[in-house]
Amino acid sequence: MPVGVFDSGVGGLTVMREIIKALPDEHILYFGDTARVPYGVRSPETVLKYSVENSQFLMSQGIKLLVIACNTSSAVSLETLRVTLPVPVIGVVEPGARAAVALTKKKKVAVIGTETTINSSSYEKAIRAIDDSISVSGIACPLFVPLIEEGWLEGDVVRLTAEKYLAPVRQGSADTLVLGCTHYPMIKEVIRDTVRIALIDSAVETAREVKRMLGGQGLLRAGRGPAKRHYFVTDSPEKFIRVGERFLDHRISNITKISLDSP
Amino acid sequence: MPVGVFDSGVGGLTVMREIIKALPDEHILYFGDTARVPYGVRSPETVLKYSVENSQFLMSQGIKLLVIACNTSSAVSLETLRVTLPVPVIGVVEPGARAAVALTKKKKVAVIGTETTINSSSYEKAIRAIDDSISVSGIACPLFVPLIEEGWLEGDVVRLTAEKYLAPVRQGSADTLVLGCTHYPMIKEVIRDTVRIALIDSAVETAREVKRMLGGQGLLRAGRGPAKRHYFVTDSPEKFIRVGERFLDHRISNITKISLDSP
Repeated sequence: MPVGVFDSGVGGLTVMREIIKALPDEHILYFGDTARVPYGVRSPETVLKYSVENSQFLMSQGIKLLVIACNTSSAVSLETLRVTLPVPVIGVVEPGARAAVALTKKKKVAVIGTETTINSSSYEKAIRAIDDSISVSGIACPLFVPLIEEGWLEGDVVRLTAEKYLAPVRQGSADTLVLGCTHYPMIKEVIRDTVRIALIDSAVETAREVKRMLGGQGLLRAGRGPAKRHYFVTDSPEKFIRVGERFLDHRISNITKISLDSP
Repeated sequence: MPVGVFDSGVGGLTVMREIIKALPDEHILYFGDTARVPYGVRSPETVLKYSVENSQFLMSQGIKLLVIACNTSSAVSLETLRVTLPVPVIGVVEPGARAAVALTKKKKVAVIGTETTINSSSYEKAIRAIDDSISVSGIACPLFVPLIEEGWLEGDVVRLTAEKYLAPVRQGSADTLVLGCTHYPMIKEVIRDTVRIALIDSAVETAREVKRMLGGQGLLRAGRGPAKRHYFVTDSPEKFIRVGERFLDHRISNITKISLDSP
């Protein structure tokens, strides 16, 4: 059975890329809810509803583990999906939070993400649940996602935007910055040059967690035959393929447009 | 009966603002499909489906005229809605196109808008249907909407973004630029400073067309009592109110969240 991965769009492909690196033999089903992207500007109740629908679709296809490869969804739906689904569920927030706790020496962590992720304080809660002596500050950076999807990954505009958003980090005393949105690894270098402190890439941490969980439960696929990957999207596939191949660093074929309205 | 106005989100409020200026006594129902915004990145078939649903909702509330205050929707759904609805339907593309034809001396017009609007060539078709000796070039500017919604209406980032997108207009010979997205009037000054040619604001032109149409059909409201305005949104109202009041230049009260999934 494959691993199921869902996101609001293409962003979760950075998580899938790391899962492929860590577990090249696993079959993977990726679901991108491109008709309803972006989740980062929607209300928590709407994001929860969409997340439940997306995971029910993947369950109907048969999966052995679910990855919520979207910070916004992880922040608002992880608890509900863990309680209601019969397979293990991994979000991107907890692995990123654990890595930040392990890395910070000054016990000061900054988190960047979409408005909904930052307003939910999900990283702060997850970090302080492990070590409540750590202080956590969050900054919403709503323009990073459209900039990245436009392919403006370097140059003046993205650099000035990063400087504007990240000024509080440069002026503050945090020694660790969590990339709390799956798009952000695409501009990791710009962010690193701007803040000059340690970065946590939740995609990398989440892939490690998937490997640990599958290994621990004896669910790793033995490598007979090539790994199969199938993509499902809710709007037309052209843009998903064009933007997504940059994120995934692999060709995207085997893609199906589905409708959640007509089950 | 009120005038009905729909858009994918807050952008159409620039059109409503101009309608209020031109027709201060009219009752107006505004529908912002904030749960499914933005339309500009979606496929034409999806935008058509959403537009039909939005207009059916407004019809169910009782309206005497429908304004499609969204370039993307106007481009793909105007014909269908004109044929199927029992009230007059006005989009934002035709009024902007007519104004461009009247204004250009060199018979060279440039149009800026979202990806879907530009790919649909709707302004080019509308302009050349009136005068096919006019040449029309289109430029998609996907970052303008998120920049405007973030409130970055002036400063380095919006200026550099405008310079990058509008370089072909500066180097070309068009003498008229159509703002083919209802958000763009919010950064009209930056755009004007960048291109230094005549601008067409479709919101202003559309409001004129609404006044002409209501007047011509004897549907203008006589001013007994204050005009009533009611807002409907499909996601939580907080962000709509916060961003929208800048667009509308009026207070937004009397707002209701509705769901199109459960009629």
